[in-house]
Amino acid sequence: MKYELYYWPHIQGRGEYVRLTLEEGEADYVDVARLPEAEGGGRPAVARLLQDAANTHPPYAPPLLKAGKQMISHTANILRFLGPRLNLVPKAAAMQTYAHGVQLTMTDFVREAHDVHHPIANSLYYEDQKTEALRRSGHFRNERLTKFLSYFETVIARGSGKYMLGKSLSYVDLSMFQVMASLNYAFPKAMAGLADKTVRLRTLHDLVAARPRIARYVASSARLAFSTHDLMRDYPELDG
Amino acid sequence: MKYELYYWPHIQGRGEYVRLTLEEGEADYVDVARLPEAEGGGRPAVARLLQDAANTHPPYAPPLLKAGKQMISHTANILRFLGPRLNLVPKAAAMQTYAHGVQLTMTDFVREAHDVHHPIANSLYYEDQKTEALRRSGHFRNERLTKFLSYFETVIARGSGKYMLGKSLSYVDLSMFQVMASLNYAFPKAMAGLADKTVRLRTLHDLVAARPRIARYVASSARLAFSTHDLMRDYPELDG
Repeated sequence: MKYELYYWPHIQGRGEYVRLTLEEGEADYVDVARLPEAEGGGRPAVARLLQDAANTHPPYAPPLLKAGKQMISHTANILRFLGPRLNLVPKAAAMQTYAHGVQLTMTDFVREAHDVHHPIANSLYYEDQKTEALRRSGHFRNERLTKFLSYFETVIARGSGKYMLGKSLSYVDLSMFQVMASLNYAFPKAMAGLADKTVRLRTLHDLVAARPRIARYVASSARLAFSTHDLMRDYPELDG
Repeated sequence: MKYELYYWPHIQGRGEYVRLTLEEGEADYVDVARLPEAEGGGRPAVARLLQDAANTHPPYAPPLLKAGKQMISHTANILRFLGPRLNLVPKAAAMQTYAHGVQLTMTDFVREAHDVHHPIANSLYYEDQKTEALRRSGHFRNERLTKFLSYFETVIARGSGKYMLGKSLSYVDLSMFQVMASLNYAFPKAMAGLADKTVRLRTLHDLVAARPRIARYVASSARLAFSTHDLMRDYPELDG
Protein backbone atom coordinates (compact mmCIF):
# COMPACT_ATOMS: atom_id res chain seq x y z
CA MET A 1 0.00 0.00 0.00
CA LYS A 2 1.31 3.42 -0.98
CA TYR A 3 0.11 6.13 1.38
CA GLU A 4 -0.37 9.82 0.66
CA LEU A 5 -0.08 12.29 3.53
CA TYR A 6 -1.68 15.71 3.13
CA TYR A 7 -0.62 18.40 5.58
CA TRP A 8 0.41 22.07 5.49
CA PRO A 9 3.99 21.98 4.25
CA HIS A 10 5.64 24.77 6.24
CA ILE A 11 5.43 23.39 9.81
CA GLN A 12 5.78 20.10 11.67
CA GLY A 13 2.32 20.50 13.14
CA ARG A 14 0.00 17.57 13.61
CA GLY A 15 1.36 16.02 10.43
CA GLU A 16 4.60 15.26 12.23
CA TYR A 17 2.88 12.69 14.44
CA VAL A 18 1.85 10.84 11.31
CA ARG A 19 5.28 11.22 9.66
CA LEU A 20 7.08 9.69 12.64
CA THR A 21 4.88 6.60 12.44
CA LEU A 22 5.23 6.32 8.67
CA GLU A 23 9.03 6.63 9.01
CA GLU A 24 9.46 4.13 11.85
CA GLY A 25 7.07 1.76 10.09
CA GLU A 26 9.05 2.06 6.84
CA ALA A 27 5.85 2.85 5.00
CA ASP A 28 5.85 3.67 1.33
CA TYR A 29 4.45 7.20 1.35
CA VAL A 30 4.42 10.59 -0.31
CA ASP A 31 4.21 13.79 1.71
CA VAL A 32 2.17 15.39 -1.04
CA ALA A 33 2.22 19.04 0.02
CA ARG A 34 6.02 18.93 0.31
CA LEU A 35 6.22 18.35 -3.43
CA PRO A 36 6.63 21.50 -5.55
CA GLU A 37 3.39 23.15 -6.60
CA ALA A 38 4.30 22.48 -10.21
CA GLU A 39 4.21 18.77 -9.36
CA GLY A 40 0.83 18.95 -7.66
CA GLY A 41 2.14 19.76 -4.19
CA GLY A 42 2.25 22.76 -1.89
CA ARG A 43 -0.61 24.23 0.09
CA PRO A 44 -2.93 24.08 -2.94
CA ALA A 45 -2.76 20.28 -2.77
CA VAL A 46 -4.24 20.34 0.73
CA ALA A 47 -6.77 23.03 -0.17
CA ARG A 48 -7.97 21.07 -3.21
CA LEU A 49 -8.60 18.01 -1.08
CA LEU A 50 -10.51 20.01 1.55
CA GLN A 51 -12.62 21.74 -1.10
CA ASP A 52 -13.29 18.75 -3.35
CA ALA A 53 -17.07 19.00 -3.78
CA ALA A 54 -17.21 15.49 -5.24
CA ASN A 55 -16.04 13.93 -1.98
CA THR A 56 -18.97 12.20 -0.30
CA HIS A 57 -16.92 11.87 2.91
CA PRO A 58 -15.67 15.43 3.38
CA PRO A 59 -12.87 16.08 5.90
CA TYR A 60 -12.72 19.10 8.19
CA ALA A 61 -8.97 19.70 8.38
CA PRO A 62 -5.58 18.11 7.75
CA PRO A 63 -3.67 15.92 8.47
CA LEU A 64 -5.36 13.58 6.02
CA LEU A 65 -4.11 10.20 4.92
CA LYS A 66 -5.09 8.64 1.63
CA ALA A 67 -4.86 4.85 1.57
CA GLY A 68 -6.17 3.66 -1.77
CA LYS A 69 -9.73 4.92 -2.07
CA GLN A 70 -9.99 5.62 1.64
CA MET A 71 -9.25 9.01 3.16
CA ILE A 72 -8.74 9.19 6.92
CA SER A 73 -8.93 12.35 9.01
CA HIS A 74 -7.65 13.28 12.49
CA THR A 75 -4.17 12.45 13.70
CA ALA A 76 -5.26 9.88 16.29
CA ASN A 77 -7.62 8.20 13.82
CA ILE A 78 -4.85 7.98 11.22
CA LEU A 79 -2.47 6.46 13.77
CA ARG A 80 -5.12 3.98 14.89
CA PHE A 81 -5.45 2.97 11.23
CA LEU A 82 -1.71 2.76 10.55
CA GLY A 83 -0.71 1.08 13.82
CA PRO A 84 -1.68 -2.51 12.98
CA ARG A 85 -0.65 -2.13 9.32
CA LEU A 86 2.87 -1.02 10.26
CA ASN A 87 3.23 -3.32 13.29
CA LEU A 88 3.34 -0.33 15.60
CA VAL A 89 0.62 -1.40 18.03
CA PRO A 90 -0.15 -4.72 19.73
CA LYS A 91 -2.52 -7.06 17.86
CA ALA A 92 -5.14 -7.41 20.61
CA ALA A 93 -8.21 -5.23 19.96
CA ALA A 94 -8.41 -4.19 23.62
CA MET A 95 -4.82 -2.94 23.51
CA GLN A 96 -5.53 -0.98 20.34
CA THR A 97 -8.49 0.67 22.04
CA TYR A 98 -6.36 1.52 25.08
CA ALA A 99 -3.56 2.88 22.87
CA HIS A 100 -6.09 5.07 21.07
CA GLY A 101 -7.34 6.44 24.40
CA VAL A 102 -3.81 7.43 25.44
CA GLN A 103 -3.25 8.99 22.01
CA LEU A 104 -6.48 11.00 22.35
CA THR A 105 -5.28 12.29 25.72
CA MET A 106 -2.17 13.50 23.90
CA THR A 107 -4.41 15.17 21.31
CA ASP A 108 -6.16 17.06 24.11
CA PHE A 109 -2.88 18.05 25.68
CA VAL A 110 -1.36 19.32 22.43
CA ARG A 111 -4.45 21.42 21.88
CA GLU A 112 -4.12 22.93 25.36
CA ALA A 113 -0.43 23.64 24.79
CA HIS A 114 -1.28 25.34 21.51
CA ASP A 115 -4.00 27.45 23.08
CA VAL A 116 -1.47 28.88 25.55
CA HIS A 117 -0.33 31.24 22.80
CA HIS A 118 -3.78 31.48 21.16
CA PRO A 119 -6.36 31.64 23.97
CA ILE A 120 -8.75 34.01 22.18
CA ALA A 121 -8.78 33.13 18.48
CA ASN A 122 -6.73 31.31 15.85
CA SER A 123 -7.53 34.16 13.48
CA LEU A 124 -5.60 36.68 15.60
CA TYR A 125 -1.84 37.06 15.80
CA TYR A 126 -0.15 36.07 19.05
CA GLU A 127 0.77 39.72 19.60
CA ASP A 128 -2.92 40.61 19.59
CA GLN A 129 -3.74 38.18 22.42
CA LYS A 130 -0.48 38.35 24.35
CA THR A 131 -2.03 39.67 27.57
CA GLU A 132 -4.45 36.76 27.69
CA ALA A 133 -1.70 34.33 26.66
CA LEU A 134 0.51 35.47 29.54
CA ARG A 135 -2.31 34.88 31.98
CA ARG A 136 -3.14 31.47 30.54
CA SER A 137 0.50 30.36 30.48
CA GLY A 138 0.85 30.38 34.28
CA HIS A 139 -2.16 28.12 34.67
CA PHE A 140 -0.90 25.90 31.89
CA ARG A 141 2.55 25.40 33.37
CA ASN A 142 1.46 25.01 36.99
CA GLU A 143 -1.71 23.01 36.49
CA ARG A 144 -2.08 21.41 33.09
CA LEU A 145 1.50 20.62 32.07
CA THR A 146 2.11 19.07 35.46
CA LYS A 147 -1.10 17.05 35.43
CA PHE A 148 -0.76 15.70 31.91
CA LEU A 149 2.93 14.78 32.22
CA SER A 150 2.21 13.11 35.54
CA TYR A 151 -0.47 11.06 33.79
CA PHE A 152 1.80 10.04 30.90
CA GLU A 153 4.57 9.16 33.35
CA THR A 154 2.04 6.97 35.20
CA VAL A 155 1.09 5.23 31.95
CA ILE A 156 4.70 4.02 31.63
CA ALA A 157 5.09 3.27 35.34
CA ARG A 158 1.97 1.10 35.45
CA GLY A 159 3.02 -0.89 32.41
CA SER A 160 5.53 -3.70 32.20
CA GLY A 161 8.38 -1.94 30.40
CA LYS A 162 9.93 1.31 29.26
CA TYR A 163 7.31 2.06 26.64
CA MET A 164 3.82 3.52 26.92
CA LEU A 165 2.20 0.16 26.25
CA GLY A 166 4.79 -1.98 28.02
CA LYS A 167 7.71 -3.88 26.55
CA SER A 168 7.52 -2.92 22.90
CA LEU A 169 7.48 0.24 20.87
CA SER A 170 4.18 1.56 19.49
CA TYR A 171 3.00 4.63 17.62
CA VAL A 172 2.01 6.04 21.03
CA ASP A 173 5.73 6.25 21.93
CA LEU A 174 6.56 8.04 18.70
CA SER A 175 3.89 10.63 19.50
CA MET A 176 5.07 10.95 23.10
CA PHE A 177 8.58 11.60 21.76
CA GLN A 178 7.20 14.41 19.61
CA VAL A 179 5.27 15.89 22.55
CA MET A 180 8.38 15.86 24.75
CA ALA A 181 10.58 17.31 22.01
CA SER A 182 8.05 20.08 21.40
CA LEU A 183 7.79 20.87 25.10
CA ASN A 184 11.57 20.95 25.50
CA TYR A 185 11.66 23.50 22.70
CA ALA A 186 8.75 25.66 23.85
CA PHE A 187 8.98 25.43 27.64
CA PRO A 188 12.63 24.67 28.49
CA LYS A 189 12.48 26.23 31.97
CA ALA A 190 9.23 24.55 32.96
CA MET A 191 10.49 21.23 31.64
CA ALA A 192 13.75 21.54 33.56
CA GLY A 193 11.70 22.11 36.69
CA LEU A 194 9.80 18.89 36.02
CA ALA A 195 12.89 16.77 35.25
CA ASP A 196 12.66 14.72 38.45
CA LYS A 197 9.01 13.94 37.81
CA THR A 198 9.47 12.92 34.18
CA VAL A 199 12.32 10.43 34.37
CA ARG A 200 10.49 7.72 32.44
CA LEU A 201 9.24 10.15 29.81
CA ARG A 202 12.72 11.57 29.26
CA THR A 203 14.14 8.06 28.96
CA LEU A 204 11.43 7.23 26.45
CA HIS A 205 12.23 10.37 24.45
CA ASP A 206 15.86 9.30 24.23
CA LEU A 207 15.00 5.69 23.35
CA VAL A 208 12.86 6.86 20.45
CA ALA A 209 15.41 9.46 19.33
CA ALA A 210 18.08 6.74 19.18
CA ARG A 211 16.12 4.42 16.90
CA PRO A 212 17.95 4.31 13.59
CA ARG A 213 15.00 5.24 11.36
CA ILE A 214 13.89 8.06 13.65
CA ALA A 215 17.44 9.37 14.05
CA ARG A 216 17.92 9.32 10.29
CA TYR A 217 14.59 11.08 9.72
CA VAL A 218 15.18 13.73 12.40
CA ALA A 219 18.59 14.49 10.87
CA SER A 220 17.13 14.82 7.38
CA SER A 221 15.80 17.90 5.63
CA ALA A 222 12.29 16.42 5.84
CA ARG A 223 12.31 17.21 9.56
CA LEU A 224 11.56 20.93 9.71
CA ALA A 225 12.84 22.95 12.65
CA PHE A 226 10.54 23.88 15.51
CA SER A 227 9.36 27.45 15.06
CA THR A 228 7.01 30.13 16.32
CA HIS A 229 4.58 29.15 13.56
CA ASP A 230 4.10 25.67 14.99
CA LEU A 231 1.74 24.10 17.53
CA MET A 232 4.08 24.77 20.47
CA ARG A 233 6.13 27.95 20.37
CA ASP A 234 9.24 29.25 22.04
CA TYR A 235 7.95 32.51 23.50
CA PRO A 236 10.17 32.92 26.60
CA GLU A 237 7.58 35.08 28.37
CA LEU A 238 5.19 32.12 28.38
CA ASP A 239 7.79 29.87 30.03
CA GLY A 240 7.72 31.77 33.34
CA MET B 1 -22.82 -7.57 27.83
CA LYS B 2 -23.66 -5.33 30.76
CA TYR B 3 -21.92 -1.96 30.48
CA GLU B 4 -20.92 0.40 33.27
CA LEU B 5 -20.68 4.11 32.52
CA TYR B 6 -18.60 6.29 34.84
CA TYR B 7 -19.11 10.04 34.59
CA TRP B 8 -19.56 12.98 36.95
CA PRO B 9 -23.19 12.70 38.08
CA HIS B 10 -24.28 16.35 38.27
CA ILE B 11 -24.11 17.43 34.61
CA GLN B 12 -24.85 16.06 31.15
CA GLY B 13 -21.29 16.74 30.04
CA ARG B 14 -19.43 14.38 27.76
CA GLY B 15 -21.17 11.45 29.42
CA GLU B 16 -24.40 12.46 27.69
CA TYR B 17 -22.96 11.54 24.29
CA VAL B 18 -22.40 8.03 25.58
CA ARG B 19 -25.82 7.85 27.29
CA LEU B 20 -27.68 8.74 24.10
CA THR B 21 -25.98 5.89 22.26
CA LEU B 22 -26.56 3.43 25.10
CA GLU B 23 -30.24 4.45 25.21
CA GLU B 24 -30.90 4.31 21.46
CA GLY B 25 -29.00 1.02 21.28
CA GLU B 26 -31.09 -0.44 24.13
CA ALA B 27 -27.89 -1.41 25.91
CA ASP B 28 -27.97 -3.03 29.32
CA TYR B 29 -26.04 -0.47 31.37
CA VAL B 30 -25.60 1.14 34.75
CA ASP B 31 -24.79 4.84 35.09
CA VAL B 32 -22.67 4.09 38.14
CA ALA B 33 -22.10 7.59 39.53
CA ARG B 34 -25.85 8.25 39.43
CA LEU B 35 -26.34 5.55 42.05
CA PRO B 36 -26.39 6.76 45.67
CA GLU B 37 -22.98 6.92 47.35
CA ALA B 38 -24.18 4.32 49.85
CA GLU B 39 -24.61 1.94 46.89
CA GLY B 40 -21.16 2.63 45.48
CA GLY B 41 -22.14 5.56 43.29
CA GLY B 42 -21.68 9.32 43.33
CA ARG B 43 -18.54 11.25 42.50
CA PRO B 44 -16.42 8.92 44.69
CA ALA B 45 -17.16 6.06 42.26
CA VAL B 46 -15.50 8.04 39.44
CA ALA B 47 -12.64 9.20 41.66
CA ARG B 48 -11.92 5.65 42.82
CA LEU B 49 -11.64 4.47 39.23
CA LEU B 50 -9.32 7.32 38.27
CA GLN B 51 -7.10 6.74 41.30
CA ASP B 52 -7.01 2.93 41.22
CA ALA B 53 -3.27 2.27 41.51
CA ALA B 54 -3.75 -1.37 40.51
CA ASN B 55 -4.97 -0.40 37.04
CA THR B 56 -2.25 -1.18 34.50
CA HIS B 57 -4.16 0.83 31.87
CA PRO B 58 -4.84 4.08 33.72
CA PRO B 59 -7.36 6.55 32.28
CA TYR B 60 -6.93 10.32 32.31
CA ALA B 61 -10.53 11.46 32.74
CA PRO B 62 -14.15 10.37 32.46
CA PRO B 63 -16.31 9.41 30.65
CA LEU B 64 -15.14 5.83 31.07
CA LEU B 65 -16.94 2.72 29.94
CA LYS B 66 -16.40 -0.65 31.53
CA ALA B 67 -17.20 -3.60 29.29
CA GLY B 68 -16.27 -6.75 31.15
CA LYS B 69 -12.57 -6.50 31.96
CA GLN B 70 -12.01 -3.75 29.43
CA MET B 71 -12.15 -0.06 30.33
CA ILE B 72 -12.44 2.44 27.50
CA SER B 73 -11.66 6.15 27.76
CA HIS B 74 -12.58 9.17 25.65
CA THR B 75 -16.07 9.82 24.36
CA ALA B 76 -15.26 9.22 20.69
CA ASN B 77 -13.32 6.05 21.51
CA ILE B 78 -16.23 4.72 23.57
CA LEU B 79 -18.67 5.45 20.75
CA ARG B 80 -16.38 3.81 18.22
CA PHE B 81 -16.40 0.74 20.47
CA LEU B 82 -20.15 0.74 21.07
CA GLY B 83 -21.23 1.59 17.52
CA PRO B 84 -20.87 -1.87 15.93
CA ARG B 85 -22.01 -3.65 19.11
CA LEU B 86 -25.26 -1.67 19.23
CA ASN B 87 -25.82 -1.56 15.45
CA LEU B 88 -25.35 2.19 15.44
CA VAL B 89 -22.70 2.43 12.73
CA PRO B 90 -22.35 0.75 9.32
CA LYS B 91 -20.48 -2.58 9.25
CA ALA B 92 -17.79 -1.57 6.73
CA ALA B 93 -14.49 -0.74 8.42
CA ALA B 94 -13.93 2.27 6.14
CA MET B 95 -17.29 3.73 7.18
CA GLN B 96 -16.46 3.22 10.85
CA THR B 97 -13.19 5.08 10.35
CA TYR B 98 -15.00 7.92 8.57
CA ALA B 99 -17.67 8.04 11.30
CA HIS B 100 -14.94 8.28 13.93
CA GLY B 101 -13.31 11.18 12.08
CA VAL B 102 -16.58 13.12 12.04
CA GLN B 103 -17.09 12.34 15.73
CA LEU B 104 -13.58 13.61 16.52
CA THR B 105 -14.39 16.85 14.71
CA MET B 106 -17.38 17.14 17.04
CA THR B 107 -15.03 16.53 19.99
CA ASP B 108 -12.87 19.44 18.82
CA PHE B 109 -15.89 21.66 18.36
CA VAL B 110 -17.37 20.91 21.79
CA ARG B 111 -13.99 21.74 23.34
CA GLU B 112 -13.92 25.08 21.53
CA ALA B 113 -17.49 25.85 22.60
CA HIS B 114 -16.56 25.04 26.19
CA ASP B 115 -13.48 27.23 26.09
CA VAL B 116 -15.61 30.24 25.15
CA HIS B 117 -16.53 30.56 28.82
CA HIS B 118 -13.17 29.24 30.07
CA PRO B 119 -10.44 30.67 27.81
CA ILE B 120 -7.82 31.07 30.56
CA ALA B 121 -8.14 28.10 32.93
CA ASN B 122 -10.58 25.42 34.02
CA SER B 123 -9.48 26.06 37.58
CA LEU B 124 -10.89 29.61 37.56
CA TYR B 125 -14.54 30.60 37.82
CA TYR B 126 -16.16 32.07 34.73
CA GLU B 127 -16.49 35.38 36.57
CA ASP B 128 -12.71 35.50 36.93
CA GLN B 129 -12.13 35.23 33.15
CA LYS B 130 -15.21 37.03 31.91
CA THR B 131 -13.31 39.78 30.07
CA GLU B 132 -11.36 37.22 28.09
CA ALA B 133 -14.50 35.12 27.56
CA LEU B 134 -16.35 38.09 26.09
CA ARG B 135 -13.53 38.69 23.65
CA ARG B 136 -13.31 35.04 22.67
CA SER B 137 -17.07 34.70 22.23
CA GLY B 138 -17.22 37.08 19.27
CA HIS B 139 -14.58 35.11 17.42
CA PHE B 140 -16.30 31.88 18.34
CA ARG B 141 -19.72 32.92 17.04
CA ASN B 142 -18.51 34.66 13.88
CA GLU B 143 -15.72 32.31 12.88
CA ARG B 144 -15.76 28.93 14.60
CA LEU B 145 -19.47 28.24 15.11
CA THR B 146 -20.14 29.21 11.51
CA LYS B 147 -17.28 27.12 10.14
CA PHE B 148 -18.00 23.97 12.11
CA LEU B 149 -21.76 24.00 11.50
CA SER B 150 -21.14 24.63 7.81
CA TYR B 151 -18.91 21.55 7.81
CA PHE B 152 -21.44 19.35 9.60
CA GLU B 153 -24.18 20.58 7.26
CA THR B 154 -21.93 19.62 4.33
CA VAL B 155 -21.42 16.14 5.80
CA ILE B 156 -25.19 15.54 5.49
CA ALA B 157 -25.49 17.29 2.12
CA ARG B 158 -22.73 15.20 0.54
CA GLY B 159 -24.25 11.96 1.80
CA SER B 160 -27.16 10.03 0.39
CA GLY B 161 -29.81 10.74 3.03
CA LYS B 162 -30.91 12.82 5.97
CA TYR B 163 -28.33 11.40 8.38
CA MET B 164 -24.64 12.16 8.87
CA LEU B 165 -23.60 8.89 7.25
CA GLY B 166 -26.39 8.71 4.69
CA LYS B 167 -29.64 6.78 4.84
CA SER B 168 -29.51 5.27 8.31
CA LEU B 169 -29.08 6.48 11.84
CA SER B 170 -25.69 6.17 13.58
CA TYR B 171 -24.16 7.23 16.85
CA VAL B 172 -22.78 10.26 14.98
CA ASP B 173 -26.36 11.53 14.59
CA LEU B 174 -27.08 11.08 18.28
CA SER B 175 -24.01 13.18 19.08
CA MET B 176 -24.94 15.80 16.49
CA PHE B 177 -28.37 16.02 18.14
CA GLN B 178 -26.69 16.69 21.48
CA VAL B 179 -24.41 19.34 19.95
CA MET B 180 -27.38 21.13 18.35
CA ALA B 181 -29.47 20.92 21.52
CA SER B 182 -26.58 22.31 23.56
CA LEU B 183 -26.01 25.15 21.10
CA ASN B 184 -29.71 26.04 21.02
CA TYR B 185 -29.56 26.34 24.80
CA ALA B 186 -26.28 28.26 25.06
CA PHE B 187 -26.33 30.43 21.92
CA PRO B 188 -30.01 30.92 20.98
CA LYS B 189 -29.45 34.22 19.17
CA ALA B 190 -26.44 33.04 17.20
CA MET B 191 -28.26 29.82 16.28
CA ALA B 192 -31.35 31.75 15.13
CA GLY B 193 -29.07 33.78 12.89
CA LEU B 194 -27.72 30.57 11.36
CA ALA B 195 -31.13 28.94 10.85
CA ASP B 196 -31.07 29.25 7.05
CA LYS B 197 -27.62 27.70 6.88
CA THR B 198 -28.41 24.76 9.16
CA VAL B 199 -31.60 23.38 7.63
CA ARG B 200 -30.29 19.82 7.41
CA LEU B 201 -28.83 19.91 10.91
CA ARG B 202 -32.07 21.21 12.41
CA THR B 203 -34.02 18.52 10.57
CA LEU B 204 -31.60 15.92 11.91
CA HIS B 205 -32.01 17.26 15.44
CA ASP B 206 -35.79 16.85 15.15
CA LEU B 207 -35.53 13.38 13.60
CA VAL B 208 -33.38 12.19 16.51
CA ALA B 209 -35.57 13.92 19.11
CA ALA B 210 -38.62 12.13 17.69
CA ARG B 211 -37.17 8.63 17.97
CA PRO B 212 -39.17 6.80 20.64
CA ARG B 213 -36.24 5.72 22.81
CA ILE B 214 -34.59 9.13 22.66
CA ALA B 215 -37.87 10.94 23.32
CA ARG B 216 -38.55 8.68 26.30
CA TYR B 217 -35.03 9.19 27.64
CA VAL B 218 -35.06 12.98 27.18
CA ALA B 219 -38.41 13.16 29.02
CA SER B 220 -37.08 11.07 31.90
CA SER B 221 -35.41 12.20 35.10
CA ALA B 222 -32.15 10.63 33.84
CA ARG B 223 -31.85 13.52 31.38
CA LEU B 224 -30.52 16.38 33.51
CA ALA B 225 -31.34 19.94 32.48
CA PHE B 226 -28.77 22.06 30.66
CA SER B 227 -27.08 24.38 33.12
CA THR B 228 -24.30 26.88 33.65
CA HIS B 229 -22.20 24.07 35.11
CA ASP B 230 -22.18 22.16 31.83
CA LEU B 231 -19.95 22.12 28.73
CA MET B 232 -22.00 24.79 26.94
CA ARG B 233 -23.54 27.51 29.05
CA ASP B 234 -26.32 30.03 28.70
CA TYR B 235 -24.47 33.25 29.46
CA PRO B 236 -26.43 35.80 27.38
CA GLU B 237 -23.46 38.17 27.17
CA LEU B 238 -21.53 35.49 25.22
CA ASP B 239 -24.37 35.16 22.68
CA GLY B 240 -23.87 38.65 21.23
